[in-house]
Amino acid sequence: MNVGERHYRTIWLSDDKRSVEIIDQRWLPHEFRIERIGTVAGIATAIRDMWVRGAPLIGVTAAYGVAIQMTDDPSDEALDAVWETLHRTRPTAINLRWALDEMRRFLKPLAPEQRAEAAYRRAAEIADEDVGLNRAIGENGLAIIKAIAARKKPGETVNILTHCNAGWLATVDYGTATAPIYLATEAGIPVHVYVDETRPRNQGAQLTAWEMAGQGVPHTLIVDNAGGHLMQHGDIDMVIVGTDRTTANGDVCNKIGTYLKALAAADNDVPFYVALPSPTIDWTVADGLAEIPIEERSGDEVSLVWGKTADGKVAQVRVSPDATPAANPAFDVTPARLVTGLITERGVAKASREGLKAMFPERG
Amino acid sequence: MNVGERHYRTIWLSDDKRSVEIIDQRWLPHEFRIERIGTVAGIATAIRDMWVRGAPLIGVTAAYGVAIQMTDDPSDEALDAVWETLHRTRPTAINLRWALDEMRRFLKPLAPEQRAEAAYRRAAEIADEDVGLNRAIGENGLAIIKAIAARKKPGETVNILTHCNAGWLATVDYGTATAPIYLATEAGIPVHVYVDETRPRNQGAQLTAWEMAGQGVPHTLIVDNAGGHLMQHGDIDMVIVGTDRTTANGDVCNKIGTYLKALAAADNDVPFYVALPSPTIDWTVADGLAEIPIEERSGDEVSLVWGKTADGKVAQVRVSPDATPAANPAFDVTPARLVTGLITERGVAKASREGLKAMFPERG
Repeated sequence: MNVGERHYRTIWLSDDKRSVEIIDQRWLPHEFRIERIGTVAGIATAIRDMWVRGAPLIGVTAAYGVAIQMTDDPSDEALDAVWETLHRTRPTAINLRWALDEMRRFLKPLAPEQRAEAAYRRAAEIADEDVGLNRAIGENGLAIIKAIAARKKPGETVNILTHCNAGWLATVDYGTATAPIYLATEAGIPVHVYVDETRPRNQGAQLTAWEMAGQGVPHTLIVDNAGGHLMQHGDIDMVIVGTDRTTANGDVCNKIGTYLKALAAADNDVPFYVALPSPTIDWTVADGLAEIPIEERSGDEVSLVWGKTADGKVAQVRVSPDATPAANPAFDVTPARLVTGLITERGVAKASREGLKAMFPERG
Repeated sequence: MNVGERHYRTIWLSDDKRSVEIIDQRWLPHEFRIERIGTVAGIATAIRDMWVRGAPLIGVTAAYGVAIQMTDDPSDEALDAVWETLHRTRPTAINLRWALDEMRRFLKPLAPEQRAEAAYRRAAEIADEDVGLNRAIGENGLAIIKAIAARKKPGETVNILTHCNAGWLATVDYGTATAPIYLATEAGIPVHVYVDETRPRNQGAQLTAWEMAGQGVPHTLIVDNAGGHLMQHGDIDMVIVGTDRTTANGDVCNKIGTYLKALAAADNDVPFYVALPSPTIDWTVADGLAEIPIEERSGDEVSLVWGKTADGKVAQVRVSPDATPAANPAFDVTPARLVTGLITERGVAKASREGLKAMFPERG
């Protein structure tokens, strides 16, 4: 999408044809920094420490990590080792595992000397496939927004709430939850987005708000606490969020707090949609609440808040007493019963085993 | 309650017998600052800018504001004017109105020259009454905690989630939602408190966490997004929150985000209690959602986060892009259907018109 006048993806191959360049998202929205990464350790750090984040982008970044490894050492052992190293960085992200499995499946049958070139080719394909998936998700979500707009007075704004950042920064381009919003804006439908700040890491405040401004989409930042109140007062027409992992039953694992918004949407008859590329579906898991292990991240993410000081420096402040312990579960599971529909690249599926089977008969 | 070795209330008369001293809560937990205030304008600022906050403490502070006014000018006009000035500072707080009405009702029949002394006496009584109410709420809530503890294995911890600060800092002493917790700890019942940080102003992270540490109550800070997930996993035995205003039907107006926690509690069969002194009940209002105007505060409270920098200074950082607009509704309404019980000074009432009538027959 656009940053100023220029179009960017979130990851691209460097001129050296070995390293990749990424937007180091930790500095957004205050600084737009591009980093070049040429080692597996660098890729692992970028994923673990969230220089890049978002399930699809993590997958593509990991795929390029495998490619870098194949340049250094294309052996079977090295292929297994890089799978292990990169899988450990963000265990909840199903796309990470999907991308690592796909790279290994694709490279294993090849002779070691062919693997490096093939790995870069396949990683680039995965990146392009992500863009295609998101564009298709955008078209399918656009139909929903159009239907909501059609029930309103002509020219009346469609108000959409989103949580976290399932935007282009979380993917290679377009985003998942944002793709319908961007396409609706292109189509001239008046949309306005309520952006949950999304504590503890504030991906909404830092990334989604920045994205919305970049693409010229009207938006308002709110605290995570406010969405229920807005829904009670009819200020939200629909919710669209992304997901890190959706089960075969349609349970949705997404950023912590998603479940609370889904409860409020159900309580106020606000449609609650989840946008997802099908690689995010974990067909091996049925009951998300019982079966998905939730990443527990450092309590420092709760206690320390990053931002820009009055004199323009990026700094962090401690919001609680020095000795206060903090817990930081990073994701929660929204049961399928609270989900109006799953917006996939093939269409909008009912959030149920039957709904997903009907949309993906080859997997069900 | 205790600050270090010493017992404090949140407000007390100065040695000059005219000014009051308060804890300037804007600097907590990083600095413990006491301010002396001797003018109505100073009282108005302290309430509006939240040097003091919490419905009961706001009421007592306003009562002393009326007393200060009576020292300067004990006329009927001045009495009406101070009512207006102070009521404007926080229109949602029902105790503020209650205290101002009570002071005017009490002072109006008196000769002007008697009003100043009478006003200080009545303000001190209101403060003492608040302490008595909270102590009684504590006893009634303690019975609930004891019942939960009795259903657990001996010695097993009772996990309580609270939102915002309905602690002693929000009252004159004990607090409302915290009074049962403090009495349970005194009674040797093992309790652990999950403290919602409570964006945007972080009263949980800054005040409740500080209070819990001061009284030696085990606690863990969480983001507002996390409570639903914890309830889904059986980590919360009960929720206790305070309220700024409860309707005659039992609808509860409290800090923004309370409604989301009540939805999660209902969805997971976690009992959801609201602790309130009866002056917080607004008998003139039935349907909270339709009738209570919600204070919309500055978007800067969302965009700018206060805390302590690495070098120990109190500073604020901007978490969103400079130009991002923010909306900041300060309260929401939790419908009575989601409330397990209202813990009052007289006992635990059902959150309904009948329940409140039965507990307060003189008002129903």
